[in-house]
Amino acid sequence: MPYKQLDQDSVIEYIKSVPEMKQVFSSFDNLNVSEIGDGNLNFVYNVTNNEKPKETVIVKQAVPFLRIVGESWPLPKERMNFEIMALQHAAKYCPALVPEIYHASHEMCLIIMQNLTDHKVIRGEIIQGKYFPRLAEDTSTYMAENLFHTTDWFLDHKTKKELVGKFINVDLCKITEDFVFTNPYEKSDTNSFNPELTQENIDFIQKDSELKLAVAEMKYKFMNNAEALLHGDLHIGSIMANEDETYVIDPEFAFFGPIGFDIGAFIGNLIMAYFSHEHRQKLLGNEPYQYRKWLLDTVEATWELFEQKFDKLWADHQEKENLPYWQYEGGKEAAAEQRKRFIRKIFSDTVGFAACKMMRRILGLAKVADIADIEDLKERARIERMTLKMGKQMVINRDSYSSIQELTALAKELSPLV
Amino acid sequence: MPYKQLDQDSVIEYIKSVPEMKQVFSSFDNLNVSEIGDGNLNFVYNVTNNEKPKETVIVKQAVPFLRIVGESWPLPKERMNFEIMALQHAAKYCPALVPEIYHASHEMCLIIMQNLTDHKVIRGEIIQGKYFPRLAEDTSTYMAENLFHTTDWFLDHKTKKELVGKFINVDLCKITEDFVFTNPYEKSDTNSFNPELTQENIDFIQKDSELKLAVAEMKYKFMNNAEALLHGDLHIGSIMANEDETYVIDPEFAFFGPIGFDIGAFIGNLIMAYFSHEHRQKLLGNEPYQYRKWLLDTVEATWELFEQKFDKLWADHQEKENLPYWQYEGGKEAAAEQRKRFIRKIFSDTVGFAACKMMRRILGLAKVADIADIEDLKERARIERMTLKMGKQMVINRDSYSSIQELTALAKELSPLV
Repeated sequence: MPYKQLDQDSVIEYIKSVPEMKQVFSSFDNLNVSEIGDGNLNFVYNVTNNEKPKETVIVKQAVPFLRIVGESWPLPKERMNFEIMALQHAAKYCPALVPEIYHASHEMCLIIMQNLTDHKVIRGEIIQGKYFPRLAEDTSTYMAENLFHTTDWFLDHKTKKELVGKFINVDLCKITEDFVFTNPYEKSDTNSFNPELTQENIDFIQKDSELKLAVAEMKYKFMNNAEALLHGDLHIGSIMANEDETYVIDPEFAFFGPIGFDIGAFIGNLIMAYFSHEHRQKLLGNEPYQYRKWLLDTVEATWELFEQKFDKLWADHQEKENLPYWQYEGGKEAAAEQRKRFIRKIFSDTVGFAACKMMRRILGLAKVADIADIEDLKERARIERMTLKMGKQMVINRDSYSSIQELTALAKELSPLV
Repeated sequence: MPYKQLDQDSVIEYIKSVPEMKQVFSSFDNLNVSEIGDGNLNFVYNVTNNEKPKETVIVKQAVPFLRIVGESWPLPKERMNFEIMALQHAAKYCPALVPEIYHASHEMCLIIMQNLTDHKVIRGEIIQGKYFPRLAEDTSTYMAENLFHTTDWFLDHKTKKELVGKFINVDLCKITEDFVFTNPYEKSDTNSFNPELTQENIDFIQKDSELKLAVAEMKYKFMNNAEALLHGDLHIGSIMANEDETYVIDPEFAFFGPIGFDIGAFIGNLIMAYFSHEHRQKLLGNEPYQYRKWLLDTVEATWELFEQKFDKLWADHQEKENLPYWQYEGGKEAAAEQRKRFIRKIFSDTVGFAACKMMRRILGLAKVADIADIEDLKERARIERMTLKMGKQMVINRDSYSSIQELTALAKELSPLV
């Protein structure tokens, strides 16, 4: 079927034409369609059987332009292919942590998938102070499973290289290159600031050579290290969850990049949430301690669980492979040392990428509601300044943190956990 | 034209069918064909007009197997595409340093190019103690031009990524992964040794954990850092030269990899030549000093000229681009610091890769004639041991050399320049 942009009516016709939909819907006679896209990139339809509301799917279609701007900003609709391929890949290693795919069409740049009716995007929930007891456990599993199983440690040389080629994601990588690693650190029309930030606050980032050299190194790493298949945009707006389940969604930025980028995105977002709740918990009428402690505990647990799980997957694989390379007296210990050094390097990258993800949310185009929606602009600026300060220290000193606790200690130094 | 394996007769028919050949040959009536392939991978024909010997071309065709073994070892003939693309790419930036391409056919996996009648493959010549006064100058130009112009520092994000995809060279990278980074460092049927090497000499490499961790890191870097378009096999058997001109040939291993790999291949080969001439110069009846000094001078000059040229290309490009990112007080100095740090990292990689290229030539399948053809096996083993010793120190300590002179000093420590 050649590409055609669907609307509220034609989406029903399309649903009817897809054989797999007969497994989901007992009848097509009374389907309700509502467009629920957040409006940035794609059209997202919720299609539900009015008579049996449990019969429901999400239809997500890419259009050949940036939806938020309109047809004047072309963006290849083929970006949906990356989301399809990445979801299919994740379904192999952690099916419980990604929405089930019912149907995908590369021609139509469209995917029909499980409607997560009992789950919410966690950013909004975290802003409200909701706890997600499984967040560290599930996110670390998602990352360890997806990342390990797409490295050269696991894949054979041919499969890996062919996947790297299939996942060359020019346009969406460019968005990250510009909006995470470039524009926020320079004078750029795409930036926007809280007016309560001073020029000095901005220069603190944009005119500091050590910081800029460090950010440029992270950008180079992002562009040149095809280590593993990343989600590519793993902030807390890409996770839907409730108390019992966690789903990672929207992997359209997927490509082969440095492992630390995904982990850093997630951890950086939690640190910003921690800062924001210095203010928000008071607004909510709570003592800030408990929720903010949970946020930092989640940062620590995410890294520690990721580290354990990645190492375990790799160690088990090493044992199964039993490579001749490590078959000598002391070889087993050396193989363990290899894992240790490699994970140490992932940690440095994680800290560096988390820092870039934090600073860009203050000075760049795309904000996080956690901080940007704070109405008291002076209070918001205070939190923005601590975010910038932490980001700067992190990216410059990324190789010198020896544990995740040193990172959370820095957060507590800037914003005491009381 | 669909693929067909050419032979001595059909190569003439093919030549006649190629329009461009009318520019080379004034007549097709008296062509002489001789097969001159070294027998490893491809068929290489020298086609010359008997009446006018200056009318001559090289026809190189890949066959769908490893020629040295036969049809039982399949190797995709499409590998020739990488050579074609790499030669065409190099012709853009250093046309004087690669053979001119007259005709290339992706279907026939074939290239017709300039016959370098006045030039010889330099390995054999260096074994004979010949000087190549332009070697450092030209090789450093070849590397700086080709490498710089395929990095993200020069190419736009889209061109770079698309080129990375086009140059995914699964099969030939696998040869390097196995024979440069794996088999020589483990018990492997593909290895072969000088019988005068002791088990202790072999264990010195194969059972040393620090060395093996370092080699594994270099292998990972080779497989995961798509920095620039490499030649991929830049040893002194891939260079043809005379006193006035230098040509780099045979880039069929081309792919996007770490910059230091090409430089390391070349420098590692010269260091082995230096060691071999401790013995060879005496055989040739010379005082060893002068020629061996030239070899080490060439090592030093190659790195220093590469460093200067790469930095100059980049600095000029930075000035032309004048990125907003560096537009602030101190930004120009920071951009210079970026170049310095980056080149420092290339140097570490160069040392590490040179080391792997050296050690594998002693313990692995493919030898270098410089050392392996030394008839006195005890003398050969002595030189092999110094090569292994130097390689081991280099790869383990690759981050701690601060100049190329420290590297040549190490060579002189192991084999005094007297």
